Amino acid sequence: MRITILGAGGFLGRKLAARLARDGQLGGQPVTALTLFDLHAPPAPDAAFPVRCLAGDLTDAAALREALPPGTAVVFHLAAVVSAAAEADFDLGMRVNLHGTLALLEACRALDTPPRVVFTSSVASFAGGQAATVPDDGRQVPANSYGAQKAIGELLLQDASRKGFLDAVSIRLPTVIVRPGRPNKAASSFVSGIVREPLLGLDTTCPVGPDFAIWACSPRRAVDWFLHAAGMDTAPLGLDRGVNPPGLSVTVGQLLAALEQVGGAEARARVRFQPDPAIESIVAAWPAAFAATRARALGFAQQEDAAAVLQAFLADDLAATRVERAAD
Amino acid sequence: MRITILGAGGFLGRKLAARLARDGQLGGQPVTALTLFDLHAPPAPDAAFPVRCLAGDLTDAAALREALPPGTAVVFHLAAVVSAAAEADFDLGMRVNLHGTLALLEACRALDTPPRVVFTSSVASFAGGQAATVPDDGRQVPANSYGAQKAIGELLLQDASRKGFLDAVSIRLPTVIVRPGRPNKAASSFVSGIVREPLLGLDTTCPVGPDFAIWACSPRRAVDWFLHAAGMDTAPLGLDRGVNPPGLSVTVGQLLAALEQVGGAEARARVRFQPDPAIESIVAAWPAAFAATRARALGFAQQEDAAAVLQAFLADDLAATRVERAAD
Repeated sequence: MRITILGAGGFLGRKLAARLARDGQLGGQPVTALTLFDLHAPPAPDAAFPVRCLAGDLTDAAALREALPPGTAVVFHLAAVVSAAAEADFDLGMRVNLHGTLALLEACRALDTPPRVVFTSSVASFAGGQAATVPDDGRQVPANSYGAQKAIGELLLQDASRKGFLDAVSIRLPTVIVRPGRPNKAASSFVSGIVREPLLGLDTTCPVGPDFAIWACSPRRAVDWFLHAAGMDTAPLGLDRGVNPPGLSVTVGQLLAALEQVGGAEARARVRFQPDPAIESIVAAWPAAFAATRARALGFAQQEDAAAVLQAFLADDLAATRVERAAD
Repeated sequence: MRITILGAGGFLGRKLAARLARDGQLGGQPVTALTLFDLHAPPAPDAAFPVRCLAGDLTDAAALREALPPGTAVVFHLAAVVSAAAEADFDLGMRVNLHGTLALLEACRALDTPPRVVFTSSVASFAGGQAATVPDDGRQVPANSYGAQKAIGELLLQDASRKGFLDAVSIRLPTVIVRPGRPNKAASSFVSGIVREPLLGLDTTCPVGPDFAIWACSPRRAVDWFLHAAGMDTAPLGLDRGVNPPGLSVTVGQLLAALEQVGGAEARARVRFQPDPAIESIVAAWPAAFAATRARALGFAQQEDAAAVLQAFLADDLAATRVERAAD
């Protein structure tokens, strides 16, 4: 089975590549070749199968044909300009998030057999706020350009699936925590920061109150969902190729309780509440809970509790984050 | 007030242009200039203000800038490759329905003041079938490329409105009846045909049974909705710029009863039921009823009953259709 990851240099792309290298198979079929594609050539994991690392622009038709060689059976489309960047630079977001997905559609049409395409859509494609539990047939009314471009990508891939050009599953990812690395300017930066920074022994602030709820998942579980989407029977999806996966609805207070459980009282004491109305006004629009009934019936695994999310960070990412941050 | 109609050569575009010429104003403001744009230069109505008739391709940036001169306050975006054609030629549908709307977005950004954009979306952007009454927040899961491209256009214009590039209202038009002209290959052709052909003194067949229901509106009411959308306050719309207007849910049996009422028993006798499973399988996916509560609250006028729809055809289009068909 030939597999391609677009956006393979990102946080989740690298984890997915490492997992495929470790497993050596997908849905019971051996991986025979892996192509990793990003703006800069991504690092190759140690693998028993050949790995090609390509640098290129998603909207460059020739580069994308190179990234999807004949016989490509699965494409993971994780490449995107993220929310804060797409909001700050509308044209850049449109180019990568919309025209890049259009270019992928054309590259898939050039293959002899329609490939499975696993697309990372986002909770940011919904508005609705803290109060609502989004039903499986909830309407996407994005409050930001990134979310609008993701919802458009879903519609494009859905129609292309109906036409037989490809065979898509779009996973509307929750906020992924704990992100390794540094705090950044994203409005959601604090969600990872309030647990990552204390576990690194650093003080941090939380711009929203303890009752603020988040729809979240761990990087481990996100990768599980990608692999399930790549191997599943898509017939039960019918026309609707978008899936709200079974994430975890968790409050800031619950995250901090898990922090104390995993990292001790001294870790918890490093978080100070410091309300920031500008950040609160942005993040208040994000839905904090989804029904996700359909995804469970389709075999997508449930996200575990907050303590498990933090323990996964300790096991998978804390050491590397320490090294990276020490180099600052 | 400077106004532009894109797709001004089509059935509804011509009616809208004629109405603007007759009214001389929109929302209480005098019309000062009208630009009509289509692939072939549309006919100019008699008007007290200057009318420019332009031929051009919607995806040609220079042609579109010419069609939206400085000071353009309202753009009616009716240009589209319709459903059967977009299904038969995917690339043509994408070019006009998707890339044409992207080109419009760019032309609007080039104006000093964001114009009002009235966009004709479609009932074809919904699946759901005969049984459902689509709620105002019903999710669009298109079962055809035309519907997918319309839903994408809505998302583009919604986000562009949020960004302040333009100020959009998208009207999801019901099946417009009675269409003048000839029967065509569209799956929906029979909906107009079963009343138009008998009123012209011609025999016709109906491929679905008398209980088959349709979400319909008259051309007159569609134009009323366009004008209301052009003049309304958009603040109450918030993020969600798509409107399900208050059409008429009507069965084939009710249409035929109205035909008998308006055209007599001899008109009714010209329709013979002749089931066509191929057509029925397509049209069965279309929703036959919408709640349309929000549109009523926003001041969109209710479609009148089936007899009124037929009488509007007799008053507005029968004579011209006779002349056109006699030339066959």
